[in-house]
Amino acid sequence: MKRTYIKDLEFGKEVILKGWIYEIRDLAKLKFILIRDCTGIVQGVIKDERIIKDLENLSFESVIEIKGKVRKANIKAELAIKDLEIEIFGIKIISLAEKLPIQVNEKTITTDFSKRLDYRSLDLRKPKILAIFKIQSKIAKYFREYFNKKNFTEVFLPSIISNSSEGGTDLFSVNYFEKKAYLAQSPQLYKQMMACSIENVFTISPVWRAEKHNTIRHLNESRQMDIEMAFSNQFSVMKELEKAVVYIVKNILKSCEKEIKLLNLNLEIPKAKYLSYDETVKILNMKYGEDLTPEDEKTLNKKFPNSLVFVHSWPVELKPFYIMPKDENINAKLSEGFDCIYRGLEITSGGQRIHIPQLLEEMLKKKKLNPKDFKDYIDSFRFGSPPHAGWSIGLERITQLITEQKNIREACIFPRDRTRVSP
Amino acid sequence: MKRTYIKDLEFGKEVILKGWIYEIRDLAKLKFILIRDCTGIVQGVIKDERIIKDLENLSFESVIEIKGKVRKANIKAELAIKDLEIEIFGIKIISLAEKLPIQVNEKTITTDFSKRLDYRSLDLRKPKILAIFKIQSKIAKYFREYFNKKNFTEVFLPSIISNSSEGGTDLFSVNYFEKKAYLAQSPQLYKQMMACSIENVFTISPVWRAEKHNTIRHLNESRQMDIEMAFSNQFSVMKELEKAVVYIVKNILKSCEKEIKLLNLNLEIPKAKYLSYDETVKILNMKYGEDLTPEDEKTLNKKFPNSLVFVHSWPVELKPFYIMPKDENINAKLSEGFDCIYRGLEITSGGQRIHIPQLLEEMLKKKKLNPKDFKDYIDSFRFGSPPHAGWSIGLERITQLITEQKNIREACIFPRDRTRVSP
Repeated sequence: MKRTYIKDLEFGKEVILKGWIYEIRDLAKLKFILIRDCTGIVQGVIKDERIIKDLENLSFESVIEIKGKVRKANIKAELAIKDLEIEIFGIKIISLAEKLPIQVNEKTITTDFSKRLDYRSLDLRKPKILAIFKIQSKIAKYFREYFNKKNFTEVFLPSIISNSSEGGTDLFSVNYFEKKAYLAQSPQLYKQMMACSIENVFTISPVWRAEKHNTIRHLNESRQMDIEMAFSNQFSVMKELEKAVVYIVKNILKSCEKEIKLLNLNLEIPKAKYLSYDETVKILNMKYGEDLTPEDEKTLNKKFPNSLVFVHSWPVELKPFYIMPKDENINAKLSEGFDCIYRGLEITSGGQRIHIPQLLEEMLKKKKLNPKDFKDYIDSFRFGSPPHAGWSIGLERITQLITEQKNIREACIFPRDRTRVSP
Repeated sequence: MKRTYIKDLEFGKEVILKGWIYEIRDLAKLKFILIRDCTGIVQGVIKDERIIKDLENLSFESVIEIKGKVRKANIKAELAIKDLEIEIFGIKIISLAEKLPIQVNEKTITTDFSKRLDYRSLDLRKPKILAIFKIQSKIAKYFREYFNKKNFTEVFLPSIISNSSEGGTDLFSVNYFEKKAYLAQSPQLYKQMMACSIENVFTISPVWRAEKHNTIRHLNESRQMDIEMAFSNQFSVMKELEKAVVYIVKNILKSCEKEIKLLNLNLEIPKAKYLSYDETVKILNMKYGEDLTPEDEKTLNKKFPNSLVFVHSWPVELKPFYIMPKDENINAKLSEGFDCIYRGLEITSGGQRIHIPQLLEEMLKKKKLNPKDFKDYIDSFRFGSPPHAGWSIGLERITQLITEQKNIREACIFPRDRTRVSP
């Protein structure tokens, strides 16, 4: 007889189930167990005294195989996905669990987070924790699906680089044979090179930042969803961002009903609001020339609830050297750079890049950087480069926002931070 | 007027095209240019003397925008995708290319490979080179699509690890704040932990091996397509491998017609042949107890052409310590490990893992390894672990085989090897 998954149980059928013991209860002469597999939880009832005797040492999270018959449940067990239960005829212990270091079946998650991370593979067995990563898996799926439908090419870009082209300093170094090399903090230069040769590309890749901060907003290893488009400016890529996020959320609402319910999420298809930096300054009563503070981001979320708030056309001095000034003019005050705020946090920074070598040199000087340090980057645009633009979204960041988690580590299976590199 | 892509050209229409100059030819009073965008190549004809005069300095690979009318081509230009050409009324140079360090429009690719890699973003503009990566993009797409349809969960696993759980020694070290950490050479332990908590998972992740070899078979940074399944043995995961590769090839045949033609590939949906190690020894006339040589792999390909050849049930001593011995018996001669050979090369190694801590300790001792060095790995199976199995395919390796490239670097956009970490 083939294994049946819990989600496929049907009334009256004889089945074999395989899974983990989520709970054990003794009641009069009966033994009740909750069995969990990757599709759900169901209650099993054992009457047979001989079987009950054999199970004296059965521990939580042991792996078992049971044989039984599906019947109506008198009371629907908590977390059970159907009004059904199993009358158990036979049980085989596949792997007896030792004493658990953390509780898997806690009703509300109260175990210390650091301990949960120490035993992350147990922590993930909690339906509410798994739900976060089921949603993350779908975010990545629908991101790629959207851009595949648009005929973007998925590219696989290097993680080990010889130096920092973005001018960042917070890089981890790698001992690469006789040389020093670094871990990429973004695939930016590479995706720009791609856009300048093969047009529209996307990629999801790990990135690393050796930032010493250790807050609920920081991860030292994370994953980034990137796109770059040829013959584009900030407005064309903002539109793609809007449509991609709408596509992702719409499909998560459809395909993750169970997870959304379990996490009690308040998720709707976002609207979009486009504001220039100048308009934003007025709306928020900000001082011109300043960046958005975390409070500003929250205010924008309140003023435009459930919206992707695009703040575009930032002043040149607030954007990195590679962002195109308006009209390809070195003296322009405004740039082709934008940020996107969703649910009160910045999810994206992006814009049109400078594809003209001379302009790039001038902008580097203007930013008090040395063009010599960026020679390879500048040279990469000498052989026919179209105007191009792009953005990136942190996969953990958007997972955190969609699943309404306070700490970004909750959106990373095995987070790496200032103090943690294991398991 | 909106930009038209070359693939969408229709007879008689007025259009704006954007792209790169692939070739320029002067003939009597006419100027012919081949224009390339991400969808194809088309010939443009310029009669207007004033326009021709303006174009005196026009160089190969410059980026242009043209306005013109689509008409029937007298002779179909080489590489053109349709019997159409453009009568050009207007042309705007967007980005004038400087003298090219490598030729983009060479008919057969003869430029020195190392130089091509130095200017990879130019190299990728060659339709034949781009075709390799269009196919690679689809391999990844269909791999994920297959396992998404099967309800596997995509997981994102760490690249920075604190030590080697597989016992490998060829690791790159990272300077991680005050600590030494390493780059993962495989997500193996992590996907096993996943299978033991949430059942069936897949992932595509970068992996690094600090091997000093610098041959056409080695990359120091590559990408791996991994799966791991709970309640499985070698046979269930081999079947999934067979079905996944068939799904990938079938869909590439459908969606990459243009690329297959351009690369002149001889690609068919593979058959499958399952052989035990014992049977293989007889067929190849090998000495029992030896590994397959590259010649043996080629012979298998000749004997079973166009097949995925699975060699399963290998002797325990030829497989790593984590592969399950037959019947969970430490004294068994044979194991639950397999290899898969496709087109004369091993694409996969996989099998059922040992999920029983005591058995793992015994096997480590048998392999003359110290269980103390694998404490975390062994401990991860103490809390209820199902039998589980998995495999991985190198993304570059399978791309190389499908696109019939001799050097694995041809299947990696920016290869990293013993001497190369840039661009």
